[in-house]
Amino acid sequence: MKWYTNNAKDSDVVLSTRIRLARNLKNYPFPTKLNASAKMQVNELVRDVLIDENEKDLHYIVMQDLPSYQAVSLAEKHLISPEFASESTGRALILSDEEDISIMLCEEDHIRLQVIYPGLSLDEAFEKASELDKKLENSLEIAFDERIGYLTQCPTNLGTGMRASVMLHLPALSKSSAMARLASTVSKLGLTLRGAYGEGSEPVGDIYQLSNQVTLGISEEAAIKNLKSIAAQIVQQEKQARSAILKDDEMVDKIFRAYGILKSARMITCSEFTSLVSYARLGAAAGLIDIPLETLGKLLVEMQPATLNSITGKANTAQERDKIRAQKIREALK
Amino acid sequence: MKWYTNNAKDSDVVLSTRIRLARNLKNYPFPTKLNASAKMQVNELVRDVLIDENEKDLHYIVMQDLPSYQAVSLAEKHLISPEFASESTGRALILSDEEDISIMLCEEDHIRLQVIYPGLSLDEAFEKASELDKKLENSLEIAFDERIGYLTQCPTNLGTGMRASVMLHLPALSKSSAMARLASTVSKLGLTLRGAYGEGSEPVGDIYQLSNQVTLGISEEAAIKNLKSIAAQIVQQEKQARSAILKDDEMVDKIFRAYGILKSARMITCSEFTSLVSYARLGAAAGLIDIPLETLGKLLVEMQPATLNSITGKANTAQERDKIRAQKIREALK
Repeated sequence: MKWYTNNAKDSDVVLSTRIRLARNLKNYPFPTKLNASAKMQVNELVRDVLIDENEKDLHYIVMQDLPSYQAVSLAEKHLISPEFASESTGRALILSDEEDISIMLCEEDHIRLQVIYPGLSLDEAFEKASELDKKLENSLEIAFDERIGYLTQCPTNLGTGMRASVMLHLPALSKSSAMARLASTVSKLGLTLRGAYGEGSEPVGDIYQLSNQVTLGISEEAAIKNLKSIAAQIVQQEKQARSAILKDDEMVDKIFRAYGILKSARMITCSEFTSLVSYARLGAAAGLIDIPLETLGKLLVEMQPATLNSITGKANTAQERDKIRAQKIREALK
Repeated sequence: MKWYTNNAKDSDVVLSTRIRLARNLKNYPFPTKLNASAKMQVNELVRDVLIDENEKDLHYIVMQDLPSYQAVSLAEKHLISPEFASESTGRALILSDEEDISIMLCEEDHIRLQVIYPGLSLDEAFEKASELDKKLENSLEIAFDERIGYLTQCPTNLGTGMRASVMLHLPALSKSSAMARLASTVSKLGLTLRGAYGEGSEPVGDIYQLSNQVTLGISEEAAIKNLKSIAAQIVQQEKQARSAILKDDEMVDKIFRAYGILKSARMITCSEFTSLVSYARLGAAAGLIDIPLETLGKLLVEMQPATLNSITGKANTAQERDKIRAQKIREALK
């Protein structure tokens, strides 16, 4: 179940839910201290635990075997980190067919296990992640301290090693003055709210990521409960803000114009597309525009530059991409 | 046959053809020297010549009886001058059902007889104007000097009293550097090329008016022949320029986006509409967009502010108009 092609609970606001666990092998130094061949040894150890005849869904990918644009495409889909995409030496990835499980090997930690599901589904994603985690613990010696918890390369992950996050589409809150206040409020509650594409980046297409910040001295269950409760409140606020702005004729006009341009343009940059699709998604969620949310969600990911290259199977120039993008959008919205 | 709802020869470039004859009654001073009741006397003299039981197509309208927005709408349709719309005292209009004949009474001259046809049809329009002119001459004493020709209030009309013009849609030439050179060239040939909406106005929607400047010492036939030949050359240049700019992907993109916005917007100002419809008309003429030229031509006139008010039968606010305009455009382009 690809997170960006399916709908689920609260999909009008919540695009996806992600659980990420950082784990390290007890008997190996952190990846920064390993040479390429030692890293590949670690990678294969993990591979051999998770992939067997019964587990045909998972695939082991040596990152050096992947064309650069395919690696970047995985980052655009939030399946790996941009940093993991940019440096392939000694790195491998375990990926499921449906892209709901992705495990970066020898990124910052030996194991970065990620489960990503559509909509708001923290419990389900955590359950799946725990299942894989148990499989690892049953076969490998994981670096764990009775007092601290899981040991990680960066101290900000010590403890649970868990980062839980939801990706939110907040067009109405973005367009109001509430956003800055909201970010400051959630930070006091141990959470971070920021633009979803890349750390510290400007919000693109009104898409934000809400994640837990604290990993030490708190259980996974408590962290998830906290995130779930705040996410639900933000979803509620966004829905109220949408009702308000949709009473504005100019906003409705902007939504229909955005949709009209998406359906008509013959060339479109990724940046313009992302901005327009945010309006279209707002209109679709409100029932103004008759287009399934998952169509727009799928476009939002697939129209990113490297993913578009992956779809066409070659590295296109920016101008070629702008034309292909416009054509694919027209086909999808027909 | 309303000029703005029908197609004719070279309609992809030529929107309409207009012949205007200025005439005055020999035994009356020019309108500036007449009081309101004397003016109405002149108006009724002309009315009684042109309108009888056999001529059910023509209607006599006392301008003071017309709501202001209806008068302005007539100016937007180029059936009367803006000046005639703004001051109604002592003025009357003879208008045909199909709006192809409009005769302003006591504007600058006693009689301003106009025939306006769609497309390039100078001979047909002149023939119709001459027919009406003969009818006037047969019954009224027209101010005429053997040496000079017809006498008019303004010396620029002395002689034939005829202004022949064609309204041209020149999006491709407008977007090139050729326009200024073209205007200067035609002026050396005794013609004027300028924005079609109002004297000396900036060109709106790439629509221009090409008209003869010389009325003295030249026959009507020679003036029309001259205009026809230059118009044909400009049409040819515009068509060549269109072939060239339509090879540009960005231009094609602009055309489709303009069309997309026209079909989608929920509010649209007249100025934005006029600019977008120029792109759409270019696309339709080139066969990129499947919409009849006459649909766009009709919109171009009917979406003007006062004409839109006339259609709805009331004086709307600008914001109301922007919404009604968007709605009517969507309906027309559905």
